[in-house]
Amino acid sequence: MSAGVTFPAGFTAAGVSAGVKPSGAADLALLVGAPGTSVAGLFTTNRVLAAPVTLSRERIAAGRGTAVVVNSGQANAATGERGAADARRIVEAAAAVAGIPVDDMLACSTGVIGEPVHLPEVVEAMPALGAALGPDGGRAFADAIMTTDTVAKTAEASSGPYRVGGAAKGVGMISPNLATMLAFVTTDAAVAPADLAGLAHDRLKPRFTALTVDGCTSTNDTVLLFASGAADQGPVGPADRAWAALADAVEEVGAALAAQLIRDAEGVTTVTLVEVEGAPSDGDARTIAKAVADSPLVKTAVFGSDPNPGRILQAVGASGVEVSPSLIDVWVGDTPVARGGVIPPAYFAADGLRGSAERAMREPEVLLRVRVGEGPGRSRVLGCDLSYAYVEINGEYTT
Amino acid sequence: MSAGVTFPAGFTAAGVSAGVKPSGAADLALLVGAPGTSVAGLFTTNRVLAAPVTLSRERIAAGRGTAVVVNSGQANAATGERGAADARRIVEAAAAVAGIPVDDMLACSTGVIGEPVHLPEVVEAMPALGAALGPDGGRAFADAIMTTDTVAKTAEASSGPYRVGGAAKGVGMISPNLATMLAFVTTDAAVAPADLAGLAHDRLKPRFTALTVDGCTSTNDTVLLFASGAADQGPVGPADRAWAALADAVEEVGAALAAQLIRDAEGVTTVTLVEVEGAPSDGDARTIAKAVADSPLVKTAVFGSDPNPGRILQAVGASGVEVSPSLIDVWVGDTPVARGGVIPPAYFAADGLRGSAERAMREPEVLLRVRVGEGPGRSRVLGCDLSYAYVEINGEYTT
Repeated sequence: MSAGVTFPAGFTAAGVSAGVKPSGAADLALLVGAPGTSVAGLFTTNRVLAAPVTLSRERIAAGRGTAVVVNSGQANAATGERGAADARRIVEAAAAVAGIPVDDMLACSTGVIGEPVHLPEVVEAMPALGAALGPDGGRAFADAIMTTDTVAKTAEASSGPYRVGGAAKGVGMISPNLATMLAFVTTDAAVAPADLAGLAHDRLKPRFTALTVDGCTSTNDTVLLFASGAADQGPVGPADRAWAALADAVEEVGAALAAQLIRDAEGVTTVTLVEVEGAPSDGDARTIAKAVADSPLVKTAVFGSDPNPGRILQAVGASGVEVSPSLIDVWVGDTPVARGGVIPPAYFAADGLRGSAERAMREPEVLLRVRVGEGPGRSRVLGCDLSYAYVEINGEYTT
Repeated sequence: MSAGVTFPAGFTAAGVSAGVKPSGAADLALLVGAPGTSVAGLFTTNRVLAAPVTLSRERIAAGRGTAVVVNSGQANAATGERGAADARRIVEAAAAVAGIPVDDMLACSTGVIGEPVHLPEVVEAMPALGAALGPDGGRAFADAIMTTDTVAKTAEASSGPYRVGGAAKGVGMISPNLATMLAFVTTDAAVAPADLAGLAHDRLKPRFTALTVDGCTSTNDTVLLFASGAADQGPVGPADRAWAALADAVEEVGAALAAQLIRDAEGVTTVTLVEVEGAPSDGDARTIAKAVADSPLVKTAVFGSDPNPGRILQAVGASGVEVSPSLIDVWVGDTPVARGGVIPPAYFAADGLRGSAERAMREPEVLLRVRVGEGPGRSRVLGCDLSYAYVEINGEYTT
């Protein structure tokens, strides 16, 4: 596995076990940028915010943030005043061992909602975490942020003199008991905070908001993009020749992490790529694509490799977007399964369209393409099927 | 089982097998009101409409409709011009055997989306359907409208001189391949169409729109309320003394049918009643209640009898309604599991609140109560859990 966040110069990282997880697996992670590192953040839109989300958002808004500490095991959400105080204690302890001003330490948490952070264990593990900090700590960092993830997720890209790295965790954009989507992307370019925020918004946000496991937005989702400047190339911004390639590299890392997240979604057996075009706007296209991707009837049909175009039409029609049913075309893979809102009789014929659509659905990744008219709006969403294992993971394992 | 739609005077009904269902079960149903019967209709809001929905809606808008023919097996949705022609042929044939003007015959269909209606079989069975029409045909009617329903659903109520009856089918408000929610309510009161429309809107719509199995709105959902006037009491309307009790009886029948629908939802093991109060408006409360009831994480938690208050808070926070997290209180049954947006530490303690919440969740029906502030908005939604059987029914049984 690749180094991930420490692939670019100017970053050290570490991950250790504080003993919070009963398994003894690593559960405390730290990523520290060189002095002068800039940061941009994307945060959950859930109205119920975890304490570390509020803390990190405030610090970034105040122009601070060169490092982040992550604890896994408790989400530190729905924990009230105590949770806010715990988050402050954690960043104080982490800043001390990292040797940076406390206001530059950001925080992320992931795990059970409502349960207080195991603060004594976390604080006690801080010296070990600081001692482990190093330029090859990216892998340990990626391991320590996992909860129910089955594999650690890292990605790397290069662009001329620049390197970009990343790590992520999560079994979706969602909040099962022990999961939240966290992603960390680093680069050794020197980027001003405003430009970095634009980069995060334009190149990373579309990649992560296009993911859906079950349509549920976590209380803790966070994406942080750090730029250390350690490549020693001087500041780079949108007016510079190198910018576009750097932005591409950042997006490449984001896309690679997003793809790893959906492939590790809870109970996933098939990844679903939903492409919508011809909508009145991109926002409308996104609404339709998410309606299709999140429909339990479409998701179970994908699980069963049953193309079932009626369910896709149902989801489009109920999405709330004003579409003309007679303009809706649907393809499963390359096979047309609805044309002008009508499922062709050939679909139901023996050895008809249905057979080829079924074959497309038996692949590990299935494309559902929907055209809803002649409008300019388009969107792509990455989802997954709804399997017995999803029900087992979320229904059987009480925590 | 009760007679249902033929409990009130002035209605005849029948159900026969046209041979469309491979099982040979009844699949063609007819309900005919006495001359002068008035009608009100509630229809799906899906943009993709089944042909019979369009036909019935147009006739009711034109002031017509004293009878309805229902075929189960094909939904006659996404069938284009051919589907519209098929629907017209079915009502012509049904009106002929019922001996009424063709414009007074409404239609409903339920079954596979996209597959053309088996028209020859349906038309050929019409004489037998007409011959079977009788004042004791309510039970056969309820049987013949079933698709994947495991039990027929009927209800009755009385109010002074008036009787109210009903029949329904559906495993939710949804469109699995072989399901759509259809409900038929009859009364022998004489009610003007405008008053009947008001009654349907005020007393039946809230009962049926409060149901959710998986948040998917069918292309075929229809509720029809017929008033025959055969009780011979003269017209009754909102200004009359008897109106309130009649409206209560109509609502009682609607509520009984809705409860039967959710208890027969696909894969249901536990019925979930979500009550939301204190929202800015009733609509906001409904949005929050549906977000909680439809959340796959809440639904699997209910399946696993895991109170998991963090998932409920997550669903409220992500509902899109602007709520203050610090004002959110949550109860599972009578047990408080979140107060002011915080899950109390007592919840996680051994022998704490969690134990009593778990016991409440092991009941066949669980109440999830959410207070989100001091606003006047409130809503109740009936949902159900997400079980292995739901995945099996919708994933394994390709059709």
